[in-house]
Amino acid sequence: MPNPPTKINTNEIAQNFLNKFDTFLFDCDGVIWSGNRLLPNVKEFLEKLRHLGKQFMFITNKSTIPRKQFVEVFKSFDIEISIDQVINSAYSSAMYVRDVLKLQPGKDKVWVFGECGIPEELNLMGFKTLGGVDPRLNEPFDAATSPFLVDGLDEDVRAVVAGFDSKINYHKLAVTLQYLLKDKEIPLVGADADRVFPERGRVLPGAGPMVESLAFQSGKVPTYCGKPTMNMLNVIVSSKHLDKSRCCMVGDIMEVDIAFGKNGNLGGTLLVLSGVETEKSLQEPKEGIPTPDFYAENLGAIYNLLK
Amino acid sequence: MPNPPTKINTNEIAQNFLNKFDTFLFDCDGVIWSGNRLLPNVKEFLEKLRHLGKQFMFITNKSTIPRKQFVEVFKSFDIEISIDQVINSAYSSAMYVRDVLKLQPGKDKVWVFGECGIPEELNLMGFKTLGGVDPRLNEPFDAATSPFLVDGLDEDVRAVVAGFDSKINYHKLAVTLQYLLKDKEIPLVGADADRVFPERGRVLPGAGPMVESLAFQSGKVPTYCGKPTMNMLNVIVSSKHLDKSRCCMVGDIMEVDIAFGKNGNLGGTLLVLSGVETEKSLQEPKEGIPTPDFYAENLGAIYNLLK
Ligand SMILES: [Mg+2]
Ligand SMILES: [Mg+2]
Repeated sequence: MPNPPTKINTNEIAQNFLNKFDTFLFDCDGVIWSGNRLLPNVKEFLEKLRHLGKQFMFITNKSTIPRKQFVEVFKSFDIEISIDQVINSAYSSAMYVRDVLKLQPGKDKVWVFGECGIPEELNLMGFKTLGGVDPRLNEPFDAATSPFLVDGLDEDVRAVVAGFDSKINYHKLAVTLQYLLKDKEIPLVGADADRVFPERGRVLPGAGPMVESLAFQSGKVPTYCGKPTMNMLNVIVSSKHLDKSRCCMVGDIMEVDIAFGKNGNLGGTLLVLSGVETEKSLQEPKEGIPTPDFYAENLGAIYNLLK
Repeated sequence: MPNPPTKINTNEIAQNFLNKFDTFLFDCDGVIWSGNRLLPNVKEFLEKLRHLGKQFMFITNKSTIPRKQFVEVFKSFDIEISIDQVINSAYSSAMYVRDVLKLQPGKDKVWVFGECGIPEELNLMGFKTLGGVDPRLNEPFDAATSPFLVDGLDEDVRAVVAGFDSKINYHKLAVTLQYLLKDKEIPLVGADADRVFPERGRVLPGAGPMVESLAFQSGKVPTYCGKPTMNMLNVIVSSKHLDKSRCCMVGDIMEVDIAFGKNGNLGGTLLVLSGVETEKSLQEPKEGIPTPDFYAENLGAIYNLLK
């Protein structure tokens, strides 16, 4: 039996928590912000970490925007970060395509099901992409007239990368299926398998159900690249040469963020209750889902203890 | 080892085949028609069966139109059939809702993800339906303004029925998820699990990937009502009091139509090669997928042998 999670609720526990780690990996939604609202005292907490010489990064399964747009979002909250402090599932998918699948930039192409984050990260690496946010995909589907089918499929497409698409439609599903079935070797890369994400007190369908739908229709098993997979961790570790034992994952979903920290043998994990999980879900863990080492109401609560 | 399939390629084999059965259950797409084209000599073959005093029905996983519209399609091909000769997965889903789930017409409501076949069959039984082809679902989704969410969910909804929807979008997926999560008891009924269907030499995504997507996001296990499930067979057998041993299922997909005949212990199965399967796929059966007792190029070929 693992130890029960330690609640960070005194100055001493908060100090000890900080002392254990050199690097903090933060999930964004439910941790740093909620929807488009920055959570209280997050900016101050990050400044404190900087002041203490701690390293931190943002590790998110949001594939709909590229990393550079995350930098803009932080800037809109008056927080300065650099692009290499952000790793999202669009970037980790692109890294997987280049470094694991060994597709060749400038030569091999990628069909994308998803929003602009995935194609933009692939394009930055030199890959041509098809599909994605091409507006012609928003037209009703007709197999006889779809501009993606009339002249045949693009022979240079060597992989399909799929993520969340709030404009999911049959045209996109149907053409993506044609690429998946084009030949047996074409892999299905899933940005992330998140079932749902929180919004305004509800949960809404995430990327996982979309990728799984493509998997079911094509008979292909997807390889996911977001949290909690090791594909995501490999991107972080290789880019930063981290000492994993001095690294803490901070997130709001146990089966995604805490599982990520545990699967990756990071030094520790912190669950904040400002997102999906509640004190109740923490006390009633589901089978196969790890519990965190530490938990706190939110990052601002830890900051307040440290003052 | 089962016997290898008998090819119907002589007058004698064709005669013996007909003599073995009193009732023929025909799949439609790939058997009776292909797209919107009637296959050759199908009309003549059906007339021959009628002349011989054989009974026949049409058993299809197409849930997008109600049974009465199938009658119209046959009429457009100059073939007269009655509505009780048609059982589609929209009707079998509605029967399941009423007779197995025991929902009460006039009181309990059903949320529908799918085209007009499902709500029309449910409405005929007296169930009120929500969702389906409501045009407001074609508007872009916003959790704060969706007319399906602003006033809360309908408390009388007791089941979700999902089938193929060529206008799949995020609004429909998101609201369907809210009903699936409304309470633990709400079942997810899938019209059919077909992965794909053939069109113009391609395969396109079927109902299965859509239902499986809803299953993945909600964590619910769907109950399917189309071929090859026994829910479909129960509807046929209870409505017709068939002698199953004198009944032959005729279809173009082994894992759907032939599996249906085998699972249901029907007297025989006939595969026609005018749809999804080819001579090659027949000779290389996949594990767990049954092979037919008989096969033929198409229904017209059998008719020609009988002349
Ligand atoms: Mg989160
Ligand atoms: Mg068929």
